[in-house]
Amino acid sequence: MNKVYIVGIGQTPVRENWDKSLKELAGEAGLSALQDAGLGYPDALFVGNMMAITANHQAQLATLMADWLGFHHKAAIAVETACSSGSAAFRMALMAVASGELETALVIGAEKMTDSPGDEITASLATAADAELEVDFGMSFVGLNALLMQRYMYEYGWKSSDFANFSVNAHANAVHNPNARFRQAITKETFAKSPMIADPINLMDASPVSDGAAAIVLSSRPISNGKKPISVVASSAMTDTISLQNRKVVTSLTAAQLSAQKAYQQAGISPSDIGLFEYHDAFSIMAALSLEACGFCEIGQGPRLAIEEKIKFDSEIPVATMGGLKARGHPVGATGVYQLVEATIQLQGLAGATQVKRNNYALTQNIGGSGSNIITHILQAE
Amino acid sequence: MNKVYIVGIGQTPVRENWDKSLKELAGEAGLSALQDAGLGYPDALFVGNMMAITANHQAQLATLMADWLGFHHKAAIAVETACSSGSAAFRMALMAVASGELETALVIGAEKMTDSPGDEITASLATAADAELEVDFGMSFVGLNALLMQRYMYEYGWKSSDFANFSVNAHANAVHNPNARFRQAITKETFAKSPMIADPINLMDASPVSDGAAAIVLSSRPISNGKKPISVVASSAMTDTISLQNRKVVTSLTAAQLSAQKAYQQAGISPSDIGLFEYHDAFSIMAALSLEACGFCEIGQGPRLAIEEKIKFDSEIPVATMGGLKARGHPVGATGVYQLVEATIQLQGLAGATQVKRNNYALTQNIGGSGSNIITHILQAE
Repeated sequence: MNKVYIVGIGQTPVRENWDKSLKELAGEAGLSALQDAGLGYPDALFVGNMMAITANHQAQLATLMADWLGFHHKAAIAVETACSSGSAAFRMALMAVASGELETALVIGAEKMTDSPGDEITASLATAADAELEVDFGMSFVGLNALLMQRYMYEYGWKSSDFANFSVNAHANAVHNPNARFRQAITKETFAKSPMIADPINLMDASPVSDGAAAIVLSSRPISNGKKPISVVASSAMTDTISLQNRKVVTSLTAAQLSAQKAYQQAGISPSDIGLFEYHDAFSIMAALSLEACGFCEIGQGPRLAIEEKIKFDSEIPVATMGGLKARGHPVGATGVYQLVEATIQLQGLAGATQVKRNNYALTQNIGGSGSNIITHILQAE
Repeated sequence: MNKVYIVGIGQTPVRENWDKSLKELAGEAGLSALQDAGLGYPDALFVGNMMAITANHQAQLATLMADWLGFHHKAAIAVETACSSGSAAFRMALMAVASGELETALVIGAEKMTDSPGDEITASLATAADAELEVDFGMSFVGLNALLMQRYMYEYGWKSSDFANFSVNAHANAVHNPNARFRQAITKETFAKSPMIADPINLMDASPVSDGAAAIVLSSRPISNGKKPISVVASSAMTDTISLQNRKVVTSLTAAQLSAQKAYQQAGISPSDIGLFEYHDAFSIMAALSLEACGFCEIGQGPRLAIEEKIKFDSEIPVATMGGLKARGHPVGATGVYQLVEATIQLQGLAGATQVKRNNYALTQNIGGSGSNIITHILQAE
């Protein structure tokens, strides 16, 4: 596959954005990325979004965004793989540019979740699970993750408080990120006292429903905008069974493991080469499982990395360096693009207070459903 | 861009399929295409679908379908551009194969619209229009097309009955297609007597809400399954303003014109080389506008081709050769793939009673929204 470069990035703050519509958020991120790239309008637009048709009564969001951004008579499509939609859109753009069909592409990940009442958003999020085998029996998305965490704790002997540092670390990093939703540090005590949502998942284990948009310009050439050019050296997507009940193993993410292995192979590197990992900490159990799947510890030992504080930005394997899903926020269809934008900023050496030391390679992994649609990317600073 | 081949096709009958779920329909079409190709499981799955999240409470349909079809640990994504979602998924698969990332890809277009009450489907279809500028003011999708048709008739001096032959031709062809929803021939009198839906669009001007799925296997190599290999020689996607009110011209489809011109250029051919045109006759006004946009007559003269019966399968420019959206049916996210499957059958010389004579090149054009997201393909018999 031909090499493809990230030549522009943009993002909006993640908030409850009452004063901006979905298209205004997506447009702001898109224009900001186009401005950063300085190339004018792209050859095509790829939008990652999960629930505009339910939460915002709008289909063909890609067409709307091309229109809103002011370019017509070019290609625009929306891509959806539940919570990994952002990375899926990025991957589609990547292949379109690599194919030679396009020279440049704009990727926007966008989601506006707070316009709908809470019960409607809970129902929209549940569509990421298997409608017939899970949701029809009353299962919510957080409920599925709670079952998974319960079983994991039982099998490997962890207790709820062993997961606290995933959230403490995310919040500590978010303090320095002006685009993060929660910029307050928390302690293990905050975690211990936080209310239960779906046992054993408490409020501090869970990422917040949010509004936000992030964007990236891809190019077939490493055009310089004054910042370090970043290339995409691996892109690997893999699915597993959508329902947890049909999975042979539920306490580790098989598709995430295989997807990471394929990505390392494509890039010709190993986990020890990775300087930061923007993981999918939608729930702290997913943080633990992601670290294991990507080879940073043995299966079942994810929480140990948190307990031993090896996940801090200046430690062995920095994660959630700008707050992660937990504290930057999780506007579902946008999250994958936020991860890639943040990894780019780190590789460019522009991450400020939470700048990681080893910034040659960054790993991002975006998870759709309960580990059912995994998209892994590795970026390299040129 | 590297050459890509269609090496397998499949489809379900278009019906009100009360006895099958969305995943059963999509799975049936997918397995049928895989069987036709005889290559085993593909490297990735691309699903075109518009409204599974509203009509079937299911997001990440691509993950679900990979699971249902029995392959895991490969890539699967869903693509959405409203009514052109099927062609958008095909185009994404095409570029992924052309990029060298994949050798084979399965494309499934699927939609199950009849599980929801009529008013909910009307609301889901309206999401193809601009939520803020059109739908919030009470506009339905058929209403928008009615405004467009009214203006077109006023500007070019046509009357409602001048559009009758678009529907008469579609139904005449559908009689011979076992997969078509309406296999009854109709006359100009049937058309004249049919009830008004949104003046001037009557029941016989409109394509039916339907359930169905169609599928295609793409390959980087022209593997023979005993049928004539078909190659994709042009793929062109273009957007226009999503709302009609913002468009400089509403009585012709500018994006469709430009998209067709680009496709002819890519293929190195002109309209006179096209042996059949599977067009997007969601409403008969769209049939007229599509013929004009693709260069088969002057702007404003589309109805003349119908009146003069030049659109029949054995005439100058065969359209809707297996019933089109009007009589085969219009399961929205599936339609683009049905068009490509039908064009393939024609190019392979296997279309039976409605086989066209000149079967070297086929044109397909899929329209999302009211002409806002156009995807054009040209297929060639090798």
